[in-house]
Amino acid sequence: MAGMTSPRSCAIAHALDIVGERWSLLIVRELGYGVHRFNEIQANTGAPRDVLTRRLARLVEAGVIERRRYSQRPERFEYHLTSAGEELRPILFLLNQWSEQWLDGAPVGETTLLHSCGNVAAAEVVCSACGGGRITGADLRVA
Amino acid sequence: MAGMTSPRSCAIAHALDIVGERWSLLIVRELGYGVHRFNEIQANTGAPRDVLTRRLARLVEAGVIERRRYSQRPERFEYHLTSAGEELRPILFLLNQWSEQWLDGAPVGETTLLHSCGNVAAAEVVCSACGGGRITGADLRVA
Repeated sequence: MAGMTSPRSCAIAHALDIVGERWSLLIVRELGYGVHRFNEIQANTGAPRDVLTRRLARLVEAGVIERRRYSQRPERFEYHLTSAGEELRPILFLLNQWSEQWLDGAPVGETTLLHSCGNVAAAEVVCSACGGGRITGADLRVA
Repeated sequence: MAGMTSPRSCAIAHALDIVGERWSLLIVRELGYGVHRFNEIQANTGAPRDVLTRRLARLVEAGVIERRRYSQRPERFEYHLTSAGEELRPILFLLNQWSEQWLDGAPVGETTLLHSCGNVAAAEVVCSACGGGRITGADLRVA
């Protein structure tokens, strides 16, 4: 068809279909901080309730989070990260560091994350193919 | 005011104000792949032209990308990553790996990125505070 474009097929775009949206990533942030109940997630993200409901359902469907019943009468659920969701946390942490380093007006985080080594976490990206060489933006090139 | 919530102040939310949106991150992807001109970015992302125009302007304003004139008559511009934008590339690369590992139906990437070591890049997140211990989701806890 005239004018049709064929966007690049890529796993980043696929991920963004699911988590590439402000509220979805803030939900993952909250669950990672140990906040699991709808009302608290709503308060801490500021997401409108109807939007939050839809985003939670989408993340459950994609296997990023799961719903667990914590009360039978009345029936109530909380939300937890799956293994897939847990592995978004280091990526969000890097995004947080990037924001603090590069963006004007980034608020100083109220929440400090510790690495399992006991120190305040300080993340960097390395390449396991060469045994740990740093990966900065300048280190990546198209094959 | 009744019903007002006070969302958590955080640098992640601040970053998502600027890049937390599908098209913005796909623009960064394209510039990282060496695609710099509006029509090609449009074709490779599939973004509507008016949306793409707004997202490009927003990214320029935030200092993530910059506009460079490459022709005077007619006056034409292309877009390049700034240092800030370059440092999003490893984060996007991690998101790509995460998608391939965890999401059903993630397309196999058409584009291979090499690390400066010469190998196909294989990224992991480590902690520089302890000299390089791996940071998985399970390794991060709130202080």
